[in-house]
Amino acid sequence: MSQRPLSVAIVGATGAVGREMLAVLQQRRFPVGKLRLFASERSAGQTLREGELGGTLQVAAPGCFDGVDVALFSAGSPVSKQWCIPAAEAGAVVVDNSSAFRMDSRVPLVVPEVNPHLAADLRAARAGSGPASTLGLFGSRRGCLLANPNCSTIIMLVAVHPLMAAFGVERLVVSTYQAASGAGAQGMAELLEQTRAVVSGGAAEPKVFTEPYAFNLFSHNSAMDPHHGLNVEETKMIHESHKIWGSTSVRITATCIRVPVLRAHCESINVTLARPATLNQVRAALRAAPGVRIIDDRAANAFPTPLKASGGDDVLVGRVRVDPSQSPDGLNTGPETPVRGFDLFIAGDQLRKGAAQNAVQLAELVTIPA
Amino acid sequence: MSQRPLSVAIVGATGAVGREMLAVLQQRRFPVGKLRLFASERSAGQTLREGELGGTLQVAAPGCFDGVDVALFSAGSPVSKQWCIPAAEAGAVVVDNSSAFRMDSRVPLVVPEVNPHLAADLRAARAGSGPASTLGLFGSRRGCLLANPNCSTIIMLVAVHPLMAAFGVERLVVSTYQAASGAGAQGMAELLEQTRAVVSGGAAEPKVFTEPYAFNLFSHNSAMDPHHGLNVEETKMIHESHKIWGSTSVRITATCIRVPVLRAHCESINVTLARPATLNQVRAALRAAPGVRIIDDRAANAFPTPLKASGGDDVLVGRVRVDPSQSPDGLNTGPETPVRGFDLFIAGDQLRKGAAQNAVQLAELVTIPA
Repeated sequence: MSQRPLSVAIVGATGAVGREMLAVLQQRRFPVGKLRLFASERSAGQTLREGELGGTLQVAAPGCFDGVDVALFSAGSPVSKQWCIPAAEAGAVVVDNSSAFRMDSRVPLVVPEVNPHLAADLRAARAGSGPASTLGLFGSRRGCLLANPNCSTIIMLVAVHPLMAAFGVERLVVSTYQAASGAGAQGMAELLEQTRAVVSGGAAEPKVFTEPYAFNLFSHNSAMDPHHGLNVEETKMIHESHKIWGSTSVRITATCIRVPVLRAHCESINVTLARPATLNQVRAALRAAPGVRIIDDRAANAFPTPLKASGGDDVLVGRVRVDPSQSPDGLNTGPETPVRGFDLFIAGDQLRKGAAQNAVQLAELVTIPA
Repeated sequence: MSQRPLSVAIVGATGAVGREMLAVLQQRRFPVGKLRLFASERSAGQTLREGELGGTLQVAAPGCFDGVDVALFSAGSPVSKQWCIPAAEAGAVVVDNSSAFRMDSRVPLVVPEVNPHLAADLRAARAGSGPASTLGLFGSRRGCLLANPNCSTIIMLVAVHPLMAAFGVERLVVSTYQAASGAGAQGMAELLEQTRAVVSGGAAEPKVFTEPYAFNLFSHNSAMDPHHGLNVEETKMIHESHKIWGSTSVRITATCIRVPVLRAHCESINVTLARPATLNQVRAALRAAPGVRIIDDRAANAFPTPLKASGGDDVLVGRVRVDPSQSPDGLNTGPETPVRGFDLFIAGDQLRKGAAQNAVQLAELVTIPA
């Protein structure tokens, strides 16, 4: 990248996602110039280092984003609500990993493999050549704000969007297998601590989650709406997918479950296409898709797992097969018979593609010339 | 029970299910008289005891089932294929927990909460008052053979059959979260050993399964058909459900996943009813169902988990809600609006209701007067 070094701020640098942002910036050779690391008062003054990048942790304060080119936020919604717009007004390209602005109509919600044009519009607008109506611009119209979708949504859409683009999607039935990392470093620590206790003959003591976590699983811990009975994680998958696709036409139901895995989410996805396709056409669409890696070896029984996804860039897709419940020939459907129902099983690193990596990709799309 | 003591044999007594059979016989106060415990040559001569029941392990041999009233098999398909019919011909009520006879048209496949009439027919036939065509009778027509369904199938049908009976079911999309116990005591030991190694900074060494199991999950380890891409666990859920219901009308797709949990399976089930029902009607049908316990507290975010199901008799059912993808009003559907789509999340002890308990229930239905 023949790009001038950019001044980068990370807000929530000590969290599981914040640390991963430091790792991803280096791995992707993002042109980091000056680096400012923000954390809570408890950590202020301490030093944080991940590989070649590091610095002294400071607390956000008025003026702290002056001169910052790119600000990556992952410190929770309250911090984002307080500081994202001031940072954008100060001229920074702000990517917020919290849910604070995801459904805000002014703010683009972007998965680079699905709707990169919204980030490209911002790049053009900042260069003075974009439409005046571009979403996400604040203050001087140099600064802007993009929202990073929820991890489960990102991972699902990277795998499903190729089918949406090629055949249309009518309905998705998804069940998730979500890692501890979605609850941050403290969620991962709770799983490890409880597991250590249980394998030593002790008892699990829930603190972060209400249910015991060692050798257990439970309905996602986010708040549940008492009327429709979906938790916030599930409604995010529905509403965010609709916003990213720019259409509510895909009917979605989701069941989100936390499993005793450390850092990658899996999803079992049943797809009803809008237009029939053959299994071979579906496979071809997935093979050609950006951000997708196929692991689908029926003979070796080798498919996506959380461990295979952990630390990697791609969403792993496997168990690609005709859904016998939506095919007139059931299990006898051949790979060249057009049908509308398919099943997939996918895995993606929650901290990377589900959070830090997607955020850095968005920063690249807006700041680095194509 | 004013019942004469029955001579009971357990084949595969040292396995995880065999031991659970000994526990369940005692908890249900089954009238165990003489007890014969069979195991492999490796264990022969050793003593096995669970609570009040125990004995010396012996190897099956011709004549070993003479005088046995009830024989419970859980030693794998090859052993069942060799000994179940000889045991039935010797006059025993044989319940086979392997897959050897499940799809055999001569053999009833029974979940007591779904199709108990097949077991009742056998009881009547043994008493001389049943139809001559009764399935499952062998030899003297005193002995008979029943098959215990696959654990995932049993647990699903206990929860779904009440909806089938009340409203009809058109389609099921199920994703499982299956425990190590489905692979027996060695599967549970592998999960514990690997986990101990990993929390101590070591590496997981797969032996029983091909994928690492500690803090990981993977597509079910049963053999996969290279043509349709479903594994045997998934096709069992389809074919066994059809046999138990006596109809192939319910269209089913299943994704079976092994998770790092010790002994209870969970299932995320999306149901399309044949006839519309309200959420309140669905809840009422589930509340009235035998073998079902509702755990569905939206305010407390408390739902079925493997740990809540472990050691219990019931299939736990929760997350009962309208499927927004099948309702014209989506998330705004009220509990009194008739719709056809619902989501459930369930949990059941794989070793008990998924195996040992169902087998003992079947023995009771055939041998104990109602």
